[in-house]
Amino acid sequence: ALLWKSKSTLTSFGVFCLQMGWGDLGVFGEPSKETPNLDQMASEGMLFLDFYTANPLCSPSRAALLTGRLPVRNGFYTTNAHARNAYTPQDIVGGIPDSELLLPELLKKAGYVNKIVGKWHLGHRPQFHPLKHGFDEWFGSPNCHFGPFDNRALPNIPVYRDWEMIGRYYEDFKIDLKTGEANLTQIYLQEALDFISKQQASQQPFFLYWAIDATHAPVYASKHFLGTSQRGLYGDAVREIDDSIGKILKHLQKLGISENTFVFFTSDNGAALISAPKQGGSNGRFLCGKQTTFEGGMREPAIAWWPGHIPAGGVSHQLGNVMDLFTTSLSLAGLQPPGDRQIDGIDLLPAILQGKLIDRPIFYYRGNEMMAVRVGLYKAHYWTWSNSWEEYSKGIDFCPGQNVSGVTTHTQEEHTTLPLLFHLGRDPGEKYPLSFASSEYQRAMEGISAVVQQHRVTMVPGEPQLNVCDKAVMNWSPPGCEKLGKCLKPPKPEPKKCVWPH
Amino acid sequence: ALLWKSKSTLTSFGVFCLQMGWGDLGVFGEPSKETPNLDQMASEGMLFLDFYTANPLCSPSRAALLTGRLPVRNGFYTTNAHARNAYTPQDIVGGIPDSELLLPELLKKAGYVNKIVGKWHLGHRPQFHPLKHGFDEWFGSPNCHFGPFDNRALPNIPVYRDWEMIGRYYEDFKIDLKTGEANLTQIYLQEALDFISKQQASQQPFFLYWAIDATHAPVYASKHFLGTSQRGLYGDAVREIDDSIGKILKHLQKLGISENTFVFFTSDNGAALISAPKQGGSNGRFLCGKQTTFEGGMREPAIAWWPGHIPAGGVSHQLGNVMDLFTTSLSLAGLQPPGDRQIDGIDLLPAILQGKLIDRPIFYYRGNEMMAVRVGLYKAHYWTWSNSWEEYSKGIDFCPGQNVSGVTTHTQEEHTTLPLLFHLGRDPGEKYPLSFASSEYQRAMEGISAVVQQHRVTMVPGEPQLNVCDKAVMNWSPPGCEKLGKCLKPPKPEPKKCVWPH
Repeated sequence: ALLWKSKSTLTSFGVFCLQMGWGDLGVFGEPSKETPNLDQMASEGMLFLDFYTANPLCSPSRAALLTGRLPVRNGFYTTNAHARNAYTPQDIVGGIPDSELLLPELLKKAGYVNKIVGKWHLGHRPQFHPLKHGFDEWFGSPNCHFGPFDNRALPNIPVYRDWEMIGRYYEDFKIDLKTGEANLTQIYLQEALDFISKQQASQQPFFLYWAIDATHAPVYASKHFLGTSQRGLYGDAVREIDDSIGKILKHLQKLGISENTFVFFTSDNGAALISAPKQGGSNGRFLCGKQTTFEGGMREPAIAWWPGHIPAGGVSHQLGNVMDLFTTSLSLAGLQPPGDRQIDGIDLLPAILQGKLIDRPIFYYRGNEMMAVRVGLYKAHYWTWSNSWEEYSKGIDFCPGQNVSGVTTHTQEEHTTLPLLFHLGRDPGEKYPLSFASSEYQRAMEGISAVVQQHRVTMVPGEPQLNVCDKAVMNWSPPGCEKLGKCLKPPKPEPKKCVWPH
Repeated sequence: ALLWKSKSTLTSFGVFCLQMGWGDLGVFGEPSKETPNLDQMASEGMLFLDFYTANPLCSPSRAALLTGRLPVRNGFYTTNAHARNAYTPQDIVGGIPDSELLLPELLKKAGYVNKIVGKWHLGHRPQFHPLKHGFDEWFGSPNCHFGPFDNRALPNIPVYRDWEMIGRYYEDFKIDLKTGEANLTQIYLQEALDFISKQQASQQPFFLYWAIDATHAPVYASKHFLGTSQRGLYGDAVREIDDSIGKILKHLQKLGISENTFVFFTSDNGAALISAPKQGGSNGRFLCGKQTTFEGGMREPAIAWWPGHIPAGGVSHQLGNVMDLFTTSLSLAGLQPPGDRQIDGIDLLPAILQGKLIDRPIFYYRGNEMMAVRVGLYKAHYWTWSNSWEEYSKGIDFCPGQNVSGVTTHTQEEHTTLPLLFHLGRDPGEKYPLSFASSEYQRAMEGISAVVQQHRVTMVPGEPQLNVCDKAVMNWSPPGCEKLGKCLKPPKPEPKKCVWPH
């Protein structure tokens, strides 16, 4: 969730829910309908049906959210191989470049106090620390909560409070992989509630980036929620997040600042079907999931909430993107986006407050390759790929039970001269490419080609940040480790090209 | 829709929407969200998430709805081959047996006036006429609106008003296959509104069975709705139905009888994916569609509406079935179900009015074979089959873009000794069978086996009605054809076994 409170009155709050899928919310048709708080948030606010993330993977999406720019511009991509997804594991050398201007840096200038709760994921080396990029407070971790590790070949991921680590996952912050029990969402919830109370008391506008991760494998939930869902552990985690969001919204109402607080809920990539059914969510009827540029990989649940401003029960077909939250937040704070660089996000306030529809394309990238583009209801695939035969034959399947011949391909298929075209209104599941010979194809591709041409000639890729890996840069000795006696000895530097298999 | 008005006060009304799928409603997550009236009906009434039809095909489902009995009991099945779907095409010799007691016959005894608007589909020979089975009025057709036919090899389907035909599809009731234009839904709507007004004026309780068919291929919509949907012609048809339902509900409110009228909306089988994307709907994330015993073939959208009685915004996980509408309707009318035969439908009023959950299984039949059973959240497949390799190789695909190895099989696979088991909460898409060796499998199958055993020992199949076909019985000369000069000469009787390929 993202929360914004502008000038002396407007607060901003964002839930950015790790890989929760479009189909995971009751309001989007999840058959168990176990998200009463999110459903109510939608009925009190505005539901976005055509909202996207900027990348089918976590780190690049988060970098895009906070910079308002496509990952290929802000450096969150790799050129080690063609069209590969990349993120920030422990051994990544890169991170968010200093040259990028992050949302909290800009909001700070307007007097905002900014906090991130949860996963940062924009690099864990000292220069990438969130407090060096505009955040005033941090509670959470720099990487995914994978583990437990052995601390010899791999250190456990640290949990930070502000500048210093205060412990490590599995050691000090327990996650029981057997039962799925962990009380982390409760801790994150308390951090959010406390921050909001403090900011309300001090009458300072704030931006809270609530980047929870309970629905990312290994999925976890608190004891109170374990076994409460029809959907198993994943559903338990969803229920706890849903419950927490309800508590946060009620807290805002209780403090009397709900009408001054803009709240947005969305996700960083589609549900990871590879973790299904035990640890993976749902992308509804959309094709495939995380890691792919099909709709299941990038179409996201999205809800805007701002009582007294956003008409209750609104539904928007505005094509939206997480990058828009950058520009929209600046607009809420009365700020202009930076004029010295290409910003991909647009200001959604006209769509949210006046129901306008702004014409804009959605680009689907995998690494440095534009795989697909959506213009209106049409989506053209310039490249198709689910994953390699080599991976697939090992059982790694990003589209389980879904095989659309010629679409969910296991080789990288180039369609740049004759893109595969789908009409997402008639065919949201991307199963029926339009006939190349049809007049509808010709007509639609004319408009799309112009958009793509314009995009290509103005594209200046940033320096790729996700090419080099080195075990020496892992979280061996994060700041604060001395006090805790938790410093580990790093190996000798040995930088290598990272391996990105898909 | 089904509308009931009991004693002197309660009216019943049912929408039974031809093969609209679970995923076609905004409230169930259709990405275009174009059913504002049905969504509002749900928010004012109760949404059923686990509601089923009795068969993956139209005629048997309708026979089950009106008799409260499984098709294998009421005769709406075939034994010509193993596990085949069958219905009532023009050349079918059989129909609803006189020995079956239909809902309108029983309601009549309690003073109800009963009307069917739309497709009857329980046989078109004289003895099967709806007015011989309890209905007082009929406007509609005995068969699907296929055509146009040539009137030599095949007569066009007649449209009846009460006892006599008043014209034929394509000849007198136009359906433009090129543009998809037909104003039939508007005619059906007017029939419904007029009947309701008349009954309200005469203070007589009524049962209206509004069996519209615009979403069945060939799909059609009125001019006013053509081109209004993001989803193409199918979406236009859905919009018109949605609009009509809104008008009917408003009409009830305007007449001041909404609190005396129980309205239920559901469908007779899953969306026909074989007609997708141009003429086929959506089953959301459920597997396959019409013709199959996977969830996409039989899980249906369902909404109960009864202002002042049903709590607004309710959501029920009660396992329901169209056969329950028989028993529930009798209960609304203060009647008992017949005691001389097995009734499969249960009274849903405790679930609807008091939020109770009644333990009951769901059986999935194909012809005379019990293919699967659902008990709680578990579904066990005793047989799997999508369709034959022979048909599939001709491009007939009931599961387009969906292939779950060992589940959507193209041979009839028997699993009676070791059923394929799915947990529909964690895995509503039936993609991940539970391990046979797991304790969860053992535990769940114990309960299921007992239910199946009980079902089998008490099963007395009815005389199969859908075995014999004869071109001589087609709608050559329906009653009333003389007045219209529309009698055609039937060929000589030549009864044969009907061919049911799937």
